[in-house]
This record gives sequence, structure tokens and C-alpha cells, in this order.
Amino acid sequence: MSTNEALSDLQTLFKQREKEFLNDYFTFLRFQSISTDPAYKDQMISCANWLVNHLEKMGFTVETWPTTGHPTLFATYMKAGPNKPTLLIYNHYDVQPVDPVSEWKSPPFEPTIRDGEVFARGAQDNKGQCFYTLLALKLMLERDGSLPINIKLCIEGEEEIGSAGLASILESKAAALKADYLAVVDLGIPGPNRPAITLGIRGMVTMEVTAQGSSSDLHSGCSGGIVFNPIHALIQIFASARDKNGRITIPGFYDDVVVLSKEDREKISWTFDHDEYEKMFGAKASGGELEFSPHERAWVRPTFEINGISGGYTGTGFKTVIPAKATAKFSCRLVPNQSPEKIGPLVARYIEKNAPDGIKVEVKINPGGGRAVHSNPSSKVVKAFAKAFEKIYKKPCEYVYEGATIPIVAKLAVASQSELVLVGLGLADDQIHAPNEHFSLDRIQKGMQVICHAIEILGKN
Amino acid sequence: MSTNEALSDLQTLFKQREKEFLNDYFTFLRFQSISTDPAYKDQMISCANWLVNHLEKMGFTVETWPTTGHPTLFATYMKAGPNKPTLLIYNHYDVQPVDPVSEWKSPPFEPTIRDGEVFARGAQDNKGQCFYTLLALKLMLERDGSLPINIKLCIEGEEEIGSAGLASILESKAAALKADYLAVVDLGIPGPNRPAITLGIRGMVTMEVTAQGSSSDLHSGCSGGIVFNPIHALIQIFASARDKNGRITIPGFYDDVVVLSKEDREKISWTFDHDEYEKMFGAKASGGELEFSPHERAWVRPTFEINGISGGYTGTGFKTVIPAKATAKFSCRLVPNQSPEKIGPLVARYIEKNAPDGIKVEVKINPGGGRAVHSNPSSKVVKAFAKAFEKIYKKPCEYVYEGATIPIVAKLAVASQSELVLVGLGLADDQIHAPNEHFSLDRIQKGMQVICHAIEILGKN
Repeated sequence: MSTNEALSDLQTLFKQREKEFLNDYFTFLRFQSISTDPAYKDQMISCANWLVNHLEKMGFTVETWPTTGHPTLFATYMKAGPNKPTLLIYNHYDVQPVDPVSEWKSPPFEPTIRDGEVFARGAQDNKGQCFYTLLALKLMLERDGSLPINIKLCIEGEEEIGSAGLASILESKAAALKADYLAVVDLGIPGPNRPAITLGIRGMVTMEVTAQGSSSDLHSGCSGGIVFNPIHALIQIFASARDKNGRITIPGFYDDVVVLSKEDREKISWTFDHDEYEKMFGAKASGGELEFSPHERAWVRPTFEINGISGGYTGTGFKTVIPAKATAKFSCRLVPNQSPEKIGPLVARYIEKNAPDGIKVEVKINPGGGRAVHSNPSSKVVKAFAKAFEKIYKKPCEYVYEGATIPIVAKLAVASQSELVLVGLGLADDQIHAPNEHFSLDRIQKGMQVICHAIEILGKN
Repeated sequence: MSTNEALSDLQTLFKQREKEFLNDYFTFLRFQSISTDPAYKDQMISCANWLVNHLEKMGFTVETWPTTGHPTLFATYMKAGPNKPTLLIYNHYDVQPVDPVSEWKSPPFEPTIRDGEVFARGAQDNKGQCFYTLLALKLMLERDGSLPINIKLCIEGEEEIGSAGLASILESKAAALKADYLAVVDLGIPGPNRPAITLGIRGMVTMEVTAQGSSSDLHSGCSGGIVFNPIHALIQIFASARDKNGRITIPGFYDDVVVLSKEDREKISWTFDHDEYEKMFGAKASGGELEFSPHERAWVRPTFEINGISGGYTGTGFKTVIPAKATAKFSCRLVPNQSPEKIGPLVARYIEKNAPDGIKVEVKINPGGGRAVHSNPSSKVVKAFAKAFEKIYKKPCEYVYEGATIPIVAKLAVASQSELVLVGLGLADDQIHAPNEHFSLDRIQKGMQVICHAIEILGKN
């Protein structure tokens, strides 16, 4: 059977049994597997158990790896034998919280189809992408009775909360995880009809700062002009960390930044559609380091971003208070070769050192950061997925980067000693992490075909 | 009867009937007259009704003036006749909210005596100070059968929320309010044994700003480096409004500031005890315009203070968000001759003008601001109260200013065409507006005596 026949065969199979497959997908989506909230621990377990059962029925050998947090599922199909390569595929079964629930047009854990899009928490991130991955394997096994390469599946339950549990067992599980290739199926494409491989993701380190002035809140009349307001302290420190062109002025911040090679640069789709962006998000591309183009700023340049700030009275009406303290949460996105272990303390010390007289500043560096990782565009695995994309979409595959972070990826690539490819069919407006997350049935089907074809190509090498 | 005899007579009367007086004071304190919260409207009315009854029993003619908000009580004793001066006394019967209730050592509306201090919301501000004022009048009337001057009492119910109701009727009530002198009994002294007159209070204008970037929250990975974070926008704007010495750099901000005359300067107790301040508030006097001394900065220099800031995720854990908007509440304390009508728009336009590209900034100027007001240290009324203080405390009276604002005062002085004195026995650590507000029985008695003696002096002029 030729590849074209095989693929159309899969399409036919999908159409014939769409109801059955949707039933599986919807069952997967109904588990309220919110990893960050201890109240959903039972739902996490139920979801993991369902996956174990599903994988075993597909013909995989499944292990449930306990971690410091939610378990990681590890499933293998090794029947292709030692002469065939092994592909490790990464997905996650945990999802983000659903607040504010009132903004959902249909209940977040009751999947609903509208205009060909499935609306549910996790519909895309990552249950949708995990689902088409498993569906590809299931259909290939049913059609051919075997897979052309060895497959290891690593499906974790803490991606949305930093993967601390999986990170803690990576070293002890290195032998099990060992693979030739690692496909992280949690990424996206630049447009509905623009197949693309993501060549890298940024790293991250997150921090929190507390600025304390007086021992309790003061009256802004009696003490205004006497004490240093801790909100002003944070403002002064943060403002000093950036120049008028958006360049971060913290000494040493850019020291380890690697500039992309000319060769790699030329592969990338840097074109940024300002109108489309503004239409989608209601915002101009006016932030970040203005000497770079928008995609460069978001993909291959680091950031220093305040994610939350709070101090004083913020309720209805007005209170003439000078607060005792003000706090902020902030993060740096990192690029090769910056490390959270270096940038975290560098930024923390800068903030502490610049505390004004009379203000006590404390910075806490959160655990669970991760390094950026770039993959090799000339590697077999990247080429196989590019070819698969081109086959399915009948268009040249583009190359992009992603500004977001999957902290476990760099660690997993090291532990498994594998060559990385970052793929997925997410779109920027899928509303992941937000109300009304959705994913299209068309992309479920295309994703299944891409995975299937890439595996076939890797099996022929 | 000599003055000394008269005063000791009042002391004796107080001691004999302390239980009866405390009963009145505690009844007054038990009304939950929180003006800002509509839930307490009935309590406001009950409190006002109790006062009306109390004043009528004292021999005053009482009017309840309806306003746009809570009523103002206006009570008169005009039997001293047209040849005697008229003193208008200002107090208020509303109090601040009591949150956080859990921090109160005894219930805020169940007055409790510990170590000679009465703990309750309003114990000082302003029910305590109002109570000793009324007690002075009551005891003089009981002792002498008359008062030596005409008295008008203006006791309002919206001081804690900006006095909009009283302000709205001032013009129509100007004839009724007309007086020779105006005593605002809502101030303090620098220490328990330091009698002092306050020569001025600052004015105020309050504002709120919203900085809006994208139409909804964005992911700090995907969009970090592309959009301008509205928290960064506020930080940049606010930081630019102040130089490294704390001087406000908004053009025109200081234009109308009147510098104190050498003569007035020399009267004032400028000495600032850094150790005591730090001990009391846990904060250094390191804020404000560093070229001035702490009291100058808080008393006769204007401020630009952020009273609240909020944006992004500030709950437990971390969220990698770039918020769609960030907000701040801020205020300027004003000195003569700055006006809220000029400074408000001046600051608002500065903030709007400095919005970075891609950020929409909107500033709202709150109604209800007020000008600063300074009184004349050589006026009869100031001299009378100074002499009364010296008599009771047996020490020279000091002169200070107050950094806080009572927005109605400047307007009331104009409407009543009277000479102003600002007095009171508050102390910095009375915890007004905070949990465990308290006022001492000793100051109730001393306050009563000061009011009484000042009236006697004014009656002799």
C-alpha cells in the first residue's frame, strides 16, 4: 500500500468511526484534571486510570510512575525491534483551571461542538493534541497490526504547574526514557493552513518581590511626604530595569544570549502581520525591545515581565492609605544559553540592591524554571515531521519559534539523549488557558495524519 | 468664681458623674455609624436622632439638615445675645469601617476600657472629640445656667467620605452658619503632654487611572516581547513623575505653592524625632522631597502618592499572564494656594500624555477634593485656644500643621465667614481608621476643660 493510499485509508477509517473516536475524546475531556488545585486530585487519578486502560487496549505496555506530585504515565511499544529507531512522544493530561467559569459559553468539562470546533478545557492544550497522537497509533496498529518504529509515550500530569514531579524522577528513569527522537506534541502552527515546525521554545524563571515600608498601613495625609511608599519603591526599581527602547538594563542580563546563525535565521518565517495581530488581540506590537522585529522579540530575545502587582487599596471608592507593603510577581523568558540558575539570582540581586532607603525588599525565586531549547532543523526527526506536514497540507512546511516555555522539555531531551522536534496544531486563537478553549475536528484529523506519516517516514530511514 | 475655681469645679463635677458621662459616651460609640456603607444607613439615622435628643436636653435648638447623603445636625445656643461673639464648632458623627474585624481585641462597637483607654471605632475620631466638646457645653450650662458666647454646632455625617452632602448645602445655609469663629475639633497634639494648636491642614485631590493594552489577558510566553504590558506602562509613567530626590517633576505642579513666611515658620515645632517615628511606625522618614525636613514635607509641601495599584495575577502561585489592563488609585495632598480644580487636571493630562504607544490610559478625577487651609496664629480664636491649652496643661502651647485633609474645612470657613482654629487632642498612635482605635479618659476630661476655658476666654474679649 502506498503512503497516499495509507493516509486516505486512515481518513476513511476516521470518518467511518468518528462517533466512536469523539466518544473517547470527549470522555478524556470530561475529567476535571486541574493539576494546580488539590480539590481535583481524584479527577487527576481517574483521568490517568482511563488513559492507562485506553493505552493498554491499544496494545501498549503501561507503567504509572509515581512522582512528588501527580503521576506520569509511561507507555511503550517496542515490537519494531532494536534495529528500528525509538521515538519518545511527550504529552500531558493535566489542564489549566477554568476561572472565570461565567465566561464559558458551554460548561468547560462538557465538550460541545459548535461550527466544527470542540469547546472544552483541554480541547487543544493538551488533551486534543494527545488524543490525535494516540489515535494515530491506534489506527496504524489496527490497520497494519504493527508500528514501523518503537514508540515510548511519556504523558505527564503536571505540565501546567511546572512539571516538578516528572523533573524529580528524570534521572532515575533515564534508561527507560532513552530514545533516538523526542517529539513534543504541545505546539502550534502560525495559521489554519500554514504547516510549521517549531524550532525552539524559550526558557523561564519566575520570581516574586515584596517591598515593605512601615509595620502597618499609614494615613497618606499624616505620613505622606515622610515615609517611602513601597508602591513607589517597586515602581522606581522596575522602571530602572528598562530603557526607553525596551532594552533591559540589568547588568549582565544579556551576557549569555546566543545570536541565531545566519543559516538558521534564513529558515524562519519572521513576517509579522501587524493588522492581524491587532485584530486578534486588540493590541499593537509596541512592547519589548524595539530594535528587534516582533517575532524576534517574542521568539529569540529574553524578556523581563511583570505578571502581577498589588499594593494599597484597590476596591471600590478610595482609601487614603500608604500601604505597609507592595508585592509583584514577575518572570523572565530566557533564550539559549541563558539559565534560570544564573538569571534568577542576577535579577533578584539587582532588585534588592536598588531598594530605596527605608524600604526592605525581598525577592523569592520560584523553583521549576527551565532553560530554552532549540532543535536542529537538519535532524532526521525534524525533517520527517516537515515532510509529513507537507504531505498532509500540500504546502511547504514553515519554521518558526515559540515564545512560551515548556520547562520539562530541555530536561527531557537531555535525560532521553534524543533529538528533539516540537510539533502541534495549536492556533493562537484557540483560547488555551482561557475561557472557551477550543480545537477543530479538522485539526484532530490532520494531526492524526501528520503523526502517522512522520512515524512512517522515520520507519523507512 | 475665678477661672481656676471654675475649672476645678468642672473636674469635680466630671469625677462625681463620670459613670453617667461614660454611659452617654459609650451609647454614642455603640451606633455603627459607618457612613461609607449603605448597610448602616439606619444606624446613621439612629445615631443622629440620639444626638438631636442629647443636644435638646442640653438646651440647644436643633435642626436636622437633609443633604444629598447623610444629614448634618445644626444646633444653636444664641442666648448670649448679639453683643457677644458666635463660635461655630465643627464635629462629625460618622466613623470609618472596621475591617479587618478580626484584628480588634474587643468588638469595635462595644466600647471597652483597658488601662484608662476606651477602645472602640470612633473612640477618638470623631465621637470622642465631639463628646468632650458637648460635655464642656453641658457642664457649663449646668454650672452657670448660661454660656458666655453664642454657640453653633455643625455635626455632620459624611466627614469620612468627603462631606459631599454638607458641601452641597453650604451656600443655602450660609446665613445660619455665619459666625465670628470656627473651631474644628478633629485634630491632635504632638504628644500626650504637648498642648498644641494646628495652624493648617493640607488639601487633597484623588484620582484613578486605568491603562489598557490588549482586549483580554495574554500569555506572557507567546506575547511577551510583542505587546506593551499595561503594568509596565503605569510603572514608566509614575516613575517619570518624580526625580531621585523625591521632587515631583510634573510641569507646573509646584507653581502655586506658597512658601511660609519667616514669621510663621518660626512659630512652628519643626523638630522631628526620627527614633520615635521609627519606633512607632517601623518606618524611616526616607520618603518625599528630601530637600525638606520630614515635618515640612508632610505639613507644608504637596505630595503625589499612589494609594493602590493592581494588575495581573496576584493570588497564590504564579500565572504567566500579561494583563489586559492595570489600574492605580492615587492622590495629591495640596498646600496653599494649590487647588484641586487645577492640580487634578494637570496631573491627569500628564499621565495621559505620557502613555506609551499601544497603551490607552484613562484618568478619572474623583469629586470631593478640597483646598488646604491655614489659620492666622494672631487671631483671637487661636490665641484663646492657645491660652486654654496652656492653662490646662500648664505648659506653653506649641504650633504645628497637619498633613491630612478635612475637605469641608476650607469651604466651611468661607461659608461661615469666620476665623478658623483647628484643635483636638488626638495622638498619632490612637489607631484612628485602623483596628483598636482608642482614646483616653484623661483626654476626654482635658478636652472638656480646654473647650470650656477657651469659650470663657472668648466670652471675656
